[in-house]
Amino acid sequence: MTQLASTIRALTFDVFGTVVDWRGTISEEGKDWEIELDWAALADAWRAGYQPAMARVRSGELGWTRLDDLHRMILDSLLPEFGLTGLSEEKLAHLNRVWHRLRPWPDAVEGLTLLKQKYVIATLSNGNVSLLTNMAKNAGLPWDCILSAELAHRYKPEPQAYRTACALLDLPPQQVLMVAAHEGDLRAAAAVGMPTAYVHRPLEYGPHNPKSWPQEGFDVMAQDFVELAALLAG
Amino acid sequence: MTQLASTIRALTFDVFGTVVDWRGTISEEGKDWEIELDWAALADAWRAGYQPAMARVRSGELGWTRLDDLHRMILDSLLPEFGLTGLSEEKLAHLNRVWHRLRPWPDAVEGLTLLKQKYVIATLSNGNVSLLTNMAKNAGLPWDCILSAELAHRYKPEPQAYRTACALLDLPPQQVLMVAAHEGDLRAAAAVGMPTAYVHRPLEYGPHNPKSWPQEGFDVMAQDFVELAALLAG
Repeated sequence: MTQLASTIRALTFDVFGTVVDWRGTISEEGKDWEIELDWAALADAWRAGYQPAMARVRSGELGWTRLDDLHRMILDSLLPEFGLTGLSEEKLAHLNRVWHRLRPWPDAVEGLTLLKQKYVIATLSNGNVSLLTNMAKNAGLPWDCILSAELAHRYKPEPQAYRTACALLDLPPQQVLMVAAHEGDLRAAAAVGMPTAYVHRPLEYGPHNPKSWPQEGFDVMAQDFVELAALLAG
Repeated sequence: MTQLASTIRALTFDVFGTVVDWRGTISEEGKDWEIELDWAALADAWRAGYQPAMARVRSGELGWTRLDDLHRMILDSLLPEFGLTGLSEEKLAHLNRVWHRLRPWPDAVEGLTLLKQKYVIATLSNGNVSLLTNMAKNAGLPWDCILSAELAHRYKPEPQAYRTACALLDLPPQQVLMVAAHEGDLRAAAAVGMPTAYVHRPLEYGPHNPKSWPQEGFDVMAQDFVELAALLAG
């Protein structure tokens, strides 16, 4: 670990699920909407549309489309099922921006603040730049820099998304640690030469669908961002 | 002013000369190099090479080249004149990165911190993303987001540099206030529809070359960032 800690110069973070709790936030915010609805089920269905929507961009069926717009397409397709067809355009636009308002996991701000003392910390998310900027402002996430798949016009796990981020940081991939709660994201980062840190977020998909600790090993394995900072301190 | 203050959502800032004092920092850092040299003159000559170097990129003579690399090309061309041909590659690389270490004007951090309470604040500089990220970390500049000509592969004052920044913020140009100490930068921003704020930095080119207050009017005119924040508060 000491070797890795002295090699790396920057950390790039997956955001949805790794830094912020999308399911918990959407469920919680639902209480304020005063609409009888299983908000956790809406969150799950919305998120379930995420990979298929990005696949349409990756395949070329859709030209480059920002995640805000993909989120809206998915939301529109879910309105009948969830009885939300009566919402005004203004309310739908506000609902769609719930992804800008996601709350960090309890350890995230403290861990990022510790890591920032020693390293450049940046997002590397499929979320668009404005989404990530608004989220950081809202949640107090202390990023040094907002990087996004939008800057490559390629969604993770396409290699160009990772390579563009390293190039913008002016660092070789070997000096940029990819941090994520998702094994596929880390495998794709490793394929371009980045070291990898797995952070466990067992409740990402809710208390009834706990994620298990991965079978596979990554360069760093941590329970949360505070432990990650401790592991990289020495 | 109240109208403008309630229309805009984000401020984008020119950086060299507007946020940080390039000439003062290079002159000051020169003292630590223990080399008999007119460091202010080196700073002036280095900066004088900036527009011609970018013109070579704009004209297509050079492909897209990051500002770090343009700075190095200019520096290399100045080495004989300033008696620096004996420096090691390591020292030259460190010297070239003085642009990452530039110090903010005394009001900059306070003013940005005030403006950040109400608006998204972002860089919009010809400096590359890594340069601006390192500078912010070193100087404590509290940007919400690092935007750069590098993300458009077009140097200011080309319109695409401004348009790309507004698009990444997901805001129409009318809602993004361009802040600069340079009239040409502001005129180019106005040409794409951005409102403009002139901030006076009379000592940018040194005490013997004070800049005068512009003849031309801009939407906001301020002596420094703290005054800018006060003007946009009400």
